[in-house]
Amino acid sequence: MKEKIFRDPVHQQIPVSDQVIYDLINTPEFQRLRRIKQLGTTGFTFHGGEHSRFSHCLGVYELARQITNLFTDKYPDIWQVEDNLLTMVAALLHDIGHGAYSHTFEGLFGTDHEAFTQEIITNPQTNVHHILSKVAPDFPDKVASVINHSYPNKQVVQLISSQIDCDRMDYLLRDSYFTGVQYGQFDLARILSSIRPIKNGIAFTYGGYHAVEDYLLSRYQMYMQVYFHPASRAMEVLLKNLLKRAQHLYPKHVAFFEKESSRLIPFFENNYQLDDYLRLDDSVLNAYFQAWTESHDPILADLASRFINRKIFKSVTFSDASKANLGQLEKEIQAVGYEPTYYTAINTSFDLPYDIYRPDSANPRTQIDIIQANGHLLELSHQSPLVATLMGTFHGDQRFYFPKEMLLPDDLFRATKENFLAELEKM
Amino acid sequence: MKEKIFRDPVHQQIPVSDQVIYDLINTPEFQRLRRIKQLGTTGFTFHGGEHSRFSHCLGVYELARQITNLFTDKYPDIWQVEDNLLTMVAALLHDIGHGAYSHTFEGLFGTDHEAFTQEIITNPQTNVHHILSKVAPDFPDKVASVINHSYPNKQVVQLISSQIDCDRMDYLLRDSYFTGVQYGQFDLARILSSIRPIKNGIAFTYGGYHAVEDYLLSRYQMYMQVYFHPASRAMEVLLKNLLKRAQHLYPKHVAFFEKESSRLIPFFENNYQLDDYLRLDDSVLNAYFQAWTESHDPILADLASRFINRKIFKSVTFSDASKANLGQLEKEIQAVGYEPTYYTAINTSFDLPYDIYRPDSANPRTQIDIIQANGHLLELSHQSPLVATLMGTFHGDQRFYFPKEMLLPDDLFRATKENFLAELEKM
Amino acid sequence: MKEKIFRDPVHQQIPVSDQVIYDLINTPEFQRLRRIKQLGTTGFTFHGGEHSRFSHCLGVYELARQITNLFTDKYPDIWQVEDNLLTMVAALLHDIGHGAYSHTFEGLFGTDHEAFTQEIITNPQTNVHHILSKVAPDFPDKVASVINHSYPNKQVVQLISSQIDCDRMDYLLRDSYFTGVQYGQFDLARILSSIRPIKNGIAFTYGGYHAVEDYLLSRYQMYMQVYFHPASRAMEVLLKNLLKRAQHLYPKHVAFFEKESSRLIPFFENNYQLDDYLRLDDSVLNAYFQAWTESHDPILADLASRFINRKIFKSVTFSDASKANLGQLEKEIQAVGYEPTYYTAINTSFDLPYDIYRPDSANPRTQIDIIQANGHLLELSHQSPLVATLMGTFHGDQRFYFPKEMLLPDDLFRATKENFLAELEKM
Amino acid sequence: MKEKIFRDPVHQQIPVSDQVIYDLINTPEFQRLRRIKQLGTTGFTFHGGEHSRFSHCLGVYELARQITNLFTDKYPDIWQVEDNLLTMVAALLHDIGHGAYSHTFEGLFGTDHEAFTQEIITNPQTNVHHILSKVAPDFPDKVASVINHSYPNKQVVQLISSQIDCDRMDYLLRDSYFTGVQYGQFDLARILSSIRPIKNGIAFTYGGYHAVEDYLLSRYQMYMQVYFHPASRAMEVLLKNLLKRAQHLYPKHVAFFEKESSRLIPFFENNYQLDDYLRLDDSVLNAYFQAWTESHDPILADLASRFINRKIFKSVTFSDASKANLGQLEKEIQAVGYEPTYYTAINTSFDLPYDIYRPDSANPRTQIDIIQANGHLLELSHQSPLVATLMGTFHGDQRFYFPKEMLLPDDLFRATKENFLAELEKM
Repeated sequence: MKEKIFRDPVHQQIPVSDQVIYDLINTPEFQRLRRIKQLGTTGFTFHGGEHSRFSHCLGVYELARQITNLFTDKYPDIWQVEDNLLTMVAALLHDIGHGAYSHTFEGLFGTDHEAFTQEIITNPQTNVHHILSKVAPDFPDKVASVINHSYPNKQVVQLISSQIDCDRMDYLLRDSYFTGVQYGQFDLARILSSIRPIKNGIAFTYGGYHAVEDYLLSRYQMYMQVYFHPASRAMEVLLKNLLKRAQHLYPKHVAFFEKESSRLIPFFENNYQLDDYLRLDDSVLNAYFQAWTESHDPILADLASRFINRKIFKSVTFSDASKANLGQLEKEIQAVGYEPTYYTAINTSFDLPYDIYRPDSANPRTQIDIIQANGHLLELSHQSPLVATLMGTFHGDQRFYFPKEMLLPDDLFRATKENFLAELEKM
Repeated sequence: MKEKIFRDPVHQQIPVSDQVIYDLINTPEFQRLRRIKQLGTTGFTFHGGEHSRFSHCLGVYELARQITNLFTDKYPDIWQVEDNLLTMVAALLHDIGHGAYSHTFEGLFGTDHEAFTQEIITNPQTNVHHILSKVAPDFPDKVASVINHSYPNKQVVQLISSQIDCDRMDYLLRDSYFTGVQYGQFDLARILSSIRPIKNGIAFTYGGYHAVEDYLLSRYQMYMQVYFHPASRAMEVLLKNLLKRAQHLYPKHVAFFEKESSRLIPFFENNYQLDDYLRLDDSVLNAYFQAWTESHDPILADLASRFINRKIFKSVTFSDASKANLGQLEKEIQAVGYEPTYYTAINTSFDLPYDIYRPDSANPRTQIDIIQANGHLLELSHQSPLVATLMGTFHGDQRFYFPKEMLLPDDLFRATKENFLAELEKM
Repeated sequence: MKEKIFRDPVHQQIPVSDQVIYDLINTPEFQRLRRIKQLGTTGFTFHGGEHSRFSHCLGVYELARQITNLFTDKYPDIWQVEDNLLTMVAALLHDIGHGAYSHTFEGLFGTDHEAFTQEIITNPQTNVHHILSKVAPDFPDKVASVINHSYPNKQVVQLISSQIDCDRMDYLLRDSYFTGVQYGQFDLARILSSIRPIKNGIAFTYGGYHAVEDYLLSRYQMYMQVYFHPASRAMEVLLKNLLKRAQHLYPKHVAFFEKESSRLIPFFENNYQLDDYLRLDDSVLNAYFQAWTESHDPILADLASRFINRKIFKSVTFSDASKANLGQLEKEIQAVGYEPTYYTAINTSFDLPYDIYRPDSANPRTQIDIIQANGHLLELSHQSPLVATLMGTFHGDQRFYFPKEMLLPDDLFRATKENFLAELEKM
Repeated sequence: MKEKIFRDPVHQQIPVSDQVIYDLINTPEFQRLRRIKQLGTTGFTFHGGEHSRFSHCLGVYELARQITNLFTDKYPDIWQVEDNLLTMVAALLHDIGHGAYSHTFEGLFGTDHEAFTQEIITNPQTNVHHILSKVAPDFPDKVASVINHSYPNKQVVQLISSQIDCDRMDYLLRDSYFTGVQYGQFDLARILSSIRPIKNGIAFTYGGYHAVEDYLLSRYQMYMQVYFHPASRAMEVLLKNLLKRAQHLYPKHVAFFEKESSRLIPFFENNYQLDDYLRLDDSVLNAYFQAWTESHDPILADLASRFINRKIFKSVTFSDASKANLGQLEKEIQAVGYEPTYYTAINTSFDLPYDIYRPDSANPRTQIDIIQANGHLLELSHQSPLVATLMGTFHGDQRFYFPKEMLLPDDLFRATKENFLAELEKM
């Protein structure tokens, strides 16, 4: 086929010269990613962060393309050229099962975007499967196995999913670029010039170790500054409470939801198929939320309106010690007339920025190894004191969310609100 | 108020320290701009171009803030400091009347985003008006007059709307940043250091004339390369035909549209209020289009599906001379079974990159003047041969759009398609 | 050899995996380019522009490396892979004959950096020649023939020297990066994806034509804004007058120059060899100029001091019509006591940004051709009205330089200076 | 005065509207900084790093200008506006005593750039002093006191010299920009929006603490990757040995040095004045080194040639334990014929990236404090585990340098070299 070039602000140009890749991009399943924001509710805090999963998935493909090209040119002895297409396809499709506001939605309705990714690839009804199976009958299963980590060649698996993979490298650069937060920038060119296929996976040359260290610091800082931003999490808990309220109302107000948000019903009823899932996206949910602002249920209407118009809850951090006081806070909130189930929330956000391989862990991580001058591998935290600090430790906080109105002066509930403030000070 | 800072990838930081500005940003009318893409269908061609009008409007405010600060500091004799807030507010709100896919929507339903901008500002029912009227009873009208060019102080008017204004400067930088097309970049710092308030408006020092020249070239190139890209226009014509089909079907299928797209009905019936308009946005329309993919009308369902899944029409340019052949092309298209009303389109896109002031024009432009060493003004095209080339000339093309299927081999319609191809060659 | 990577701010990384290239970089002739500024006196106006010819030459090599790699991968039928090394070497060495403040120096002493480039490559005494001749006995001559345009394969010649070549592309990007003047930026990625080897040379696909247009505009703007900046030219004329004075003094003050600036003597005596030339660089000349500030000749000392301490002349543009008045200006300058030969200067700077091929020209240019959809070539100015404006027209100005002191108030020469100012106004 | 703008690639534009600042920039003492590279020998490793101290000093001024403007506008109660000019002048002049290859030169000749900075400011003979004393008779001393930390207002002192000051912020951004090593980039805009004058100095708001953390990480990484690069240090030790050899030869070869490098003699004789110091710069030294390549002393000529042509020594790290073996290595080197005094070197490079205030330290550092929500100050390492890792710990290494030839095969000294290699393996 004639090469097509996608213009991309992160990688400048993303060339596609493989018909399979091009056809996959043109499937409805993949085009649907245009309608799902990469950062969910984060765009409400960092207004530039409005890019789609579509652009991220193309970016991951592009990194896989560059790395497999590089390996093909320079390390044909240890890298198997016949894995190139597989790697690029797995990169392109690794997130195809993501849905609208995935993390919140999953928490509430029990959907699993990873399972949907597998299904979109392996289910013979999908356009994606149709295209993949033309490569070879077992190609869909191979792609799925790369994504679920069971593919035997760990080089391929680690390029798609490890502590330094094409996915993470693209999203750090991309989220950083679009939000305007420079912390996510790292030296991609240096990482690409130091990445090597080795016998059991991927490693990095000694000359690139500061670039890898910097990548991990960038990742840590993006979590602290962007992904865990209290205002974005405020939008998340609002969304969760809103959907929770809708699900609670559904059994008694079927007609309303059939009229205003029919595509959610399979999820309210916990009886959904892949097709039901693919018919949802950010647009559909946002259109529903707008419709709900006109609902007769005051809680549903109010929460929907808060979400649509970005009237976010306030929050306070709490420790395990001060957690016991939350009950008292909820009481005061209820006293003012806010139902705590829908007007308060706890959000716990912790990240483990880096860890070594721990064979007895449930999900052991692939550690990052640096190739020494003598050819031996040394795990990164032995090289870098900064990485050693991040290694094995969780970073983040837990926050209690409540209506902003609790902080506003008010004649009617003056005493209650003063109590609330006094309690809040103790957190 | 405590200064709030919006992180922005184009201007790095956008500080807000005025309560009026902050309150305006928090109105539902302004938050709604988060759900309207700045570039409409262009994001389907340049996938990074998914930023919202919300981010652009903040950016225009930021440029107005920088320039009014500068004028206040350096030219207090000729610039009236009491116009600062007015200028910033007008900058923030200049696009508030934009709706979902404005240009296409307006072409079909006769809505007018400029009239809506005026109404949102001056209608006592809106949140925006409420906040503005607290500044002074006549403040809403003053803001509206800046935007509609009737405000007496032309310095303010030209900062908001002229051939080099805060609006255009922000959108060139922003659209360029997000699409990844560097052509829109120009030397903003230099322009800001050469802009001057003069008696009847705005001018630029001689030292900045190359920066202004470069800005105009950037604007020209963004039109040629991005805004007029044939693929984006293919999505526009698809959208137009899709909405046209829906409007055509509406009278006989009221129930379907009431169920699946109730918010469009006031527009189908040409009987809408501001409220109806504000209830539409990209999300709502996209959700409707997805619903329409399941319609029983094959044309509506097919066009909706093409739009949602980005199956765009192909196109060919034509001249006034070859225009006569379009009828023949339409005939062949109809012969294959495509209704030309919905499966073909003409798109004419021309821009006048720059023009001098022409008093007898219907909409005379404010020309760009350069302050010479002796203090006199010289119109830019007298200084720059490149600008002289662009001055007064329209650039663009007219294209005829048709289904891609007309180019695919096909046993059934082989002869017709061969005729079509032969005719196409002649265009 | 093991790949070496040069970190470069313009191209990020410049990999060298060819021993010949690496050895050439390590010759004294090439290392000497570290001591010669790319922009000569321009760094006195744009203080960031202090980069060396060394960095530029590496950059030209890198572009040649990328393009020959690309041609090898994608167009092996029309591009001869055996020209890769030749192209990269010619790119690396194309400027190796440049000397300290080349243009001014050449104007005065009649040296010719292009002739020195040829000599460094072909003279068996040089390290460069030694390395080249190990590739093949005729390799030095081949490299020299590429640089002097006589090599039969015009693809190679045009990559090194044409209106859009590796040299110009690198210097625009590089000079722009270091000076901080954004005008020189253009879309390199797009140009690289549209460049094609054709039968008789190099052409560009239709899809890249706006990028090529933008490159030419960038070039034009760099000339107007940076290379022809009046202050840089003021340093040039100062340098020229300074060297002229030294040459004038030399015959009567041999001992002084032997002590303080012995390496210039072969040039004063117009009797120099390659070795004499290679022993000069910016450092050596600057050290001499500092020594001259302590000379007993007041003119030499004063001019040297002005150069070292950046006390530049003022200037005024003049037309062919007003040229006649220069004599009167010189008279007034002389009346104040400044010897016009050393205290005034005319600097004429014009550039022809682009031209078509004109077979009857002394140095016909290779025009830029765009490959149309049907495969035919169309010369760029037929495609782009902006390029048509630049085509065949010279841009620049002529300036008369004089001591700044002529503009300062002064009791002694009050009348003379007032006359001077009055004459100046008329220019 | 009319505002002058210096175009700068790091800060885009550096406006000067204060006559004092402009006059200082135009002094010979300040213009001299154009001829002294900011990074000394580092440009031999990172070829883009060829920027001058002139550009850095302008950049430090620009940061001081921005911060004092900010403080004047926003914190007039706690910041004294009358310190603005003092702060900007101290920023501009803080490095004016730097000389050619300062660090190496000082190590050998006992000069002290900080003492020279004080002298240039306070000595009535200098142009700088002349301009400063026109502001007020005690102004020179005030400027000097800011730079030597004795000025009573610690806000001013800390802006010029502390662990996060205008100097360091500019050099990290600048060195990073010019070398092309991205690690030095940090979020300047965020730091500027969180910096605050407090009672006893400078602090940062909580919202900016990640930006400050990132700044410290950037600084650490620039030290590890750029400033301590083994190849740059190889040039430093070469330079040191070269000057050491010249000094050693001087007493017996006075005539040679008088002819070829007269300006170094006051330093060889340890009898220099400020004037002698100001007559040196990179150009002068480089010109001398080139002259020395033609000396009859084989060691001087060889070392000069190695420096000029960048033939650097190789190196090996050593620990305190393995240090004892260096004697053996030196013996083998001597056996091959290289005088260890001039052909080997030890370079020890350690940096303390951050430390808290330690009152009993000889040079106690000013710690970085973060303003908590309740207004209290918290020292940064209590907030950031990454900073805690860097706090109080030295990073770097010690290296032993030796001629590259020791690693090349050689019939004559085969056994010696094999011994050397064997010893080297043990280090």
